[in-house]
Amino acid sequence: MRPSKLASLPTIKRLPSYLHVIENAEREGAEFISGTVIADELELEPIQVRKDLAITGIVGKPRIGFPVQELIDAIYSFLHWDQDHKAVIIGAGSLATALMGYPEFTRRGLSIVAAFDADEKKVGREIYQKPVYAMESLGDRIEALGARIAILTVPSAVAQAAAEQVIAAGVTSIWNFTNVKLKVPSGIIVQKEDLSSGYAVLSVKIRKLHGE
Amino acid sequence: MRPSKLASLPTIKRLPSYLHVIENAEREGAEFISGTVIADELELEPIQVRKDLAITGIVGKPRIGFPVQELIDAIYSFLHWDQDHKAVIIGAGSLATALMGYPEFTRRGLSIVAAFDADEKKVGREIYQKPVYAMESLGDRIEALGARIAILTVPSAVAQAAAEQVIAAGVTSIWNFTNVKLKVPSGIIVQKEDLSSGYAVLSVKIRKLHGE
Repeated sequence: MRPSKLASLPTIKRLPSYLHVIENAEREGAEFISGTVIADELELEPIQVRKDLAITGIVGKPRIGFPVQELIDAIYSFLHWDQDHKAVIIGAGSLATALMGYPEFTRRGLSIVAAFDADEKKVGREIYQKPVYAMESLGDRIEALGARIAILTVPSAVAQAAAEQVIAAGVTSIWNFTNVKLKVPSGIIVQKEDLSSGYAVLSVKIRKLHGE
Repeated sequence: MRPSKLASLPTIKRLPSYLHVIENAEREGAEFISGTVIADELELEPIQVRKDLAITGIVGKPRIGFPVQELIDAIYSFLHWDQDHKAVIIGAGSLATALMGYPEFTRRGLSIVAAFDADEKKVGREIYQKPVYAMESLGDRIEALGARIAILTVPSAVAQAAAEQVIAAGVTSIWNFTNVKLKVPSGIIVQKEDLSSGYAVLSVKIRKLHGE
């Protein structure tokens, strides 16, 4: 399958950082926030911020800025973060533990309700009060758990097999933290995460710092 | 400090995924790879791929494509991944463990040589054969370790204090996995990582799948 392209992918990726700044302003009691303030905070161009935020349908007022509460609600609504997204995590290792303990996800509507692992030593344990189930029980449990998202943190060698198992069990979206480009049937969403992206940016910044 | 903007930030972020595809082609013995093949593999537009790869100075030949080995070398060189980057990780929790075990980093020149933690129960342990040292010993150890990069995975409440400690110890670049916008002196590089970015893209893809 070749999914339809999201024209505004970089915009979508920036929305969480906007949300972070705007929510900080809300906590400080601000009713309005200017695009320039957001831009300064995130080291972006003000024009970029205004263009990005237009995607939410909220338009800033000249000299006053964006209405804070409306803008927060509009971002949540645009991202569907005002709804509950139940997920399971496949592979109960250190990355799974880190993701299950990431406080931001809960606030953004993502509930990781259980982990699955092929290692029987891990099965029966809990991670942040969530159960670790046996990989073999996936098919029987996914529906009862109500999870349509699977977060894949298994070793690369078993990533494709794990993807096939979760899809067979009824999962329709995979957040893929492995290095493997998954082959999935049409209609299944895959979002690949690559921690090397941030490292690439860091590397270029370091190169620039050293004046090369 | 307001660092100079990297005009081509989205391009830089895409380079690791290009590298991944091109290295796969290399392993399969390909001498050339076309921009269209790369674009298909990554679900991008071919024009985008050619524009992005131009940053490395390598130009594809019509009908033949890019020379695989030259392109790999050029990406490594552009990102300075052909050089060794030593880093320490601050906060020896599950995210630190996941990052220390991430095989891609080593191949990309990033060596995480030690972890530091304030919890004395963790001090003296090893994570992937790397020592966990006491946070108090940071100042004495950083220089001997030769690390100029600190990866911050501490709880938000202590992030700013940890940043100040690593900077005082001689670190010049911080890869910040916390939610905190760090205040750092001029000349210090901070790259903030936000796992919510990928989740935002996933959420929008799910919304589109459901036709909303």
